[in-house]
Amino acid sequence: MKSYNLIKPEIRIIGLDDTSFIPHSKGKIGVIGVVFRGGYWLEDLMKTEITIDGFDATENISSMIINSPHYQQLQLIMLNGIMFGGFNIVNMKQLSLTTKLPILSVIRKKPVFSSIQKALRNFPNFKERWKAILDAGKIIETTARNSKSKIYFQAIGISEKDAQKIIRLTSTMSNIPEVLRVAHIVASGIGSI
Amino acid sequence: MKSYNLIKPEIRIIGLDDTSFIPHSKGKIGVIGVVFRGGYWLEDLMKTEITIDGFDATENISSMIINSPHYQQLQLIMLNGIMFGGFNIVNMKQLSLTTKLPILSVIRKKPVFSSIQKALRNFPNFKERWKAILDAGKIIETTARNSKSKIYFQAIGISEKDAQKIIRLTSTMSNIPEVLRVAHIVASGIGSI
Repeated sequence: MKSYNLIKPEIRIIGLDDTSFIPHSKGKIGVIGVVFRGGYWLEDLMKTEITIDGFDATENISSMIINSPHYQQLQLIMLNGIMFGGFNIVNMKQLSLTTKLPILSVIRKKPVFSSIQKALRNFPNFKERWKAILDAGKIIETTARNSKSKIYFQAIGISEKDAQKIIRLTSTMSNIPEVLRVAHIVASGIGSI
Repeated sequence: MKSYNLIKPEIRIIGLDDTSFIPHSKGKIGVIGVVFRGGYWLEDLMKTEITIDGFDATENISSMIINSPHYQQLQLIMLNGIMFGGFNIVNMKQLSLTTKLPILSVIRKKPVFSSIQKALRNFPNFKERWKAILDAGKIIETTARNSKSKIYFQAIGISEKDAQKIIRLTSTMSNIPEVLRVAHIVASGIGSI
């Protein structure tokens, strides 16, 4: 587990979100990686592609990050949930292992696991996908900028306490970390890949 | 000419830049429009397409802006130069007329007009393209964040003095307005459309 003796306000984070697509369509979609300094400013932006409802998100995101010129400076990966491009689930444990970075998934709503499990049973590699869901670990409730509005996170390779600190420190403009707010705006705004 | 009695630090600006492409290739490229509050934060992002070396940038950018949900709140359009997608030149006068907004083009280097004119002579509608160059008006030298490093701008529908004020006010992170720094990072980062 990464130990943060002191969390710098300008900690370098990559935040990830997927581009929009028509549900049940086939093909590829983009995943946008936004490099941010703390909750303050955009430093760079990168893109990779994954298969809609495929199972290549973990590998492709990992390659994009490892091959980025920012890799050595990155301190943390933040995900806007673990489901990208439909049911292309990111295995946070695996992603942390290959990138050697701690991972935080931050979500606004608690997922309904029974519905996800039901949907995943339609895929041939159900077990692997379900394992990715379980590997993300327990869902922890917290607050960020707005102390009355709950958000939720899952953390790999970073303590619950440090995760909460970083979420609060970087949620400068809204109730979610700025890197995820910006990744979402960019990924939605550019439309399909 | 738009008169700014008081320029708010959180003035709503749209900044435009084009996605990368291989020179002399054919087809379409993307133009990214980033909506920013002053020099501070990203509010939204939109995209349109233009033809490489075509002459549809003015019209397509104008449509994108007018049809945006932010249109009524926008105070200013900023361009990263007037040449998009090769020699697809934005006519600033025309764009200001159709959008009813002032336009600022901000560049780091003074263009070499003799080279541009020579290149434009290869296009059938040379006169129209050259008119778009002339319609952008005179190039004014200024400084932004770094008082030692010169930058240049062209302004339509806004006074030289107000333009300089807004450039300085919004260049919060680097030597160019933040909306253009971010538009450039996004447009370059997403690669081709």
